[in-house]
Amino acid sequence: MSLTQNFFTQLATLVKKNKSLLCVGLDSHLETLRKKSKLNNQFQFNKKIIEATYQAICAFKINTAFYEAEGEKGIRALKKTVDYLKQKYPEIPLIIDGKRGDIANTNEAYRKFIFDYLKADGVTVNPYLGKEALLPFLNLKDKGVFILCKTSNPGAGEFQDLRVCIDKKEKKNRTLLFYQLIAKRVVAEWNQNKNCALVVGGTYPQSLKNLRKIVGEDMWLLIPGLGEQGGELKAILKEGLNSKKEGLVINLSRSIIFSPNPKKSAEEWRKMINYHR
Amino acid sequence: MSLTQNFFTQLATLVKKNKSLLCVGLDSHLETLRKKSKLNNQFQFNKKIIEATYQAICAFKINTAFYEAEGEKGIRALKKTVDYLKQKYPEIPLIIDGKRGDIANTNEAYRKFIFDYLKADGVTVNPYLGKEALLPFLNLKDKGVFILCKTSNPGAGEFQDLRVCIDKKEKKNRTLLFYQLIAKRVVAEWNQNKNCALVVGGTYPQSLKNLRKIVGEDMWLLIPGLGEQGGELKAILKEGLNSKKEGLVINLSRSIIFSPNPKKSAEEWRKMINYHR
Repeated sequence: MSLTQNFFTQLATLVKKNKSLLCVGLDSHLETLRKKSKLNNQFQFNKKIIEATYQAICAFKINTAFYEAEGEKGIRALKKTVDYLKQKYPEIPLIIDGKRGDIANTNEAYRKFIFDYLKADGVTVNPYLGKEALLPFLNLKDKGVFILCKTSNPGAGEFQDLRVCIDKKEKKNRTLLFYQLIAKRVVAEWNQNKNCALVVGGTYPQSLKNLRKIVGEDMWLLIPGLGEQGGELKAILKEGLNSKKEGLVINLSRSIIFSPNPKKSAEEWRKMINYHR
Repeated sequence: MSLTQNFFTQLATLVKKNKSLLCVGLDSHLETLRKKSKLNNQFQFNKKIIEATYQAICAFKINTAFYEAEGEKGIRALKKTVDYLKQKYPEIPLIIDGKRGDIANTNEAYRKFIFDYLKADGVTVNPYLGKEALLPFLNLKDKGVFILCKTSNPGAGEFQDLRVCIDKKEKKNRTLLFYQLIAKRVVAEWNQNKNCALVVGGTYPQSLKNLRKIVGEDMWLLIPGLGEQGGELKAILKEGLNSKKEGLVINLSRSIIFSPNPKKSAEEWRKMINYHR
């Protein structure tokens, strides 16, 4: 991917070219892949998945956890995977899903891991420490920064659905849900480089509806939580698409990569998404 | 560390034995250590720091970011460091500071990295996804789970100091600051295995005062943010210690490990902390 091209321009190009809003998550949990494939190697497995699915997708996403779990060997497999992707399919945006968030000095080290070492195009980050801490990511004009907003897990609402008081600068005596406030802040203050997107769990279509209103037409939303986690595709598309029938990156991991036929499965998801668009 | 011994029992034993509340953070940023020492190797550097400081401390903390930044080589240095520590000083609690937080399925993979691969005794986690997501950590009875509460960075208050409405089950029509609510939830609902602690930035002594009231006598608080970040030691001890003059783990990273004489620096911090206790 060219350094001068913004992540979301690149993404939109591939969405059109491949007619796809599907993102495949290369979350190659080693014990599962041993059971489900004849392989015992995360990189070899990923190569097969990449070759089987690259024409049906608009992006790949990789969750670091499943590689860190295997230690040094896992990081080697992760590095080989991203090198393979960048060499063979440089036009496909690669999102590293690490949900990192630390003080700025430490985020600078995570930035080095994700963008210098892994050469990713996008990253997921946790908003809890605030904008100031995330500047090492937010300052990267050509990268995509996906900020956790409403997560897909069953207990997401414990804090994310809390009612918070908006401070006087915004509107006096009004309240918002916490995840809504995060979206408002991202739109109004964090997105100066037009490089922000939100992560919104596909298990919460009502939150998605609300968030599309808050962020407007132009912001992309990354949607995990379909497939194994049970999110409903039709409702997600209805509530989340913008007026151009775009604006969503719909991630499927386990239910594609561990299916008996990943190529067929990815193609089916692509079609199903387009059918309901 | 014995599998049947709780992290905090182990910690309290070393606090007494070494007369120390000091934790040294092995945040061995490679470019800085190249400049400040003659070494070009994170593991060799850490070995020197461990040998120079182990008698002055109650715990070691390692932030994963500074190793991930160096890719596979960094993970190897991290693994060698923890293996060295566990072999030579098994009585010293080791906290892996990764501030991870994902859905439960993925946190299980992070758990494998932190506790099976790195064989840590404690971990820092991000509360944003709620208790349900963190169960793979909270279920580890003998480990220490340090939950981010008020972080040390200048912009921590953006969300952490928001006023939130407490739901009806707790107390109607009352509000709390967000970080205070997290502390209340941890005390009331997350700490069933008596394995929780909070992370509270040493840059916010007033928050610390408030949090000590909320969590009571028995909960340990991990305090980053002194040294380079400018937190004030005297105020921290005044506001944060429990009645036994314990309950705080005070972390220093850069200002010890990159000082001209880490052994002397650690000893001075230990003494300074004890002087104000």
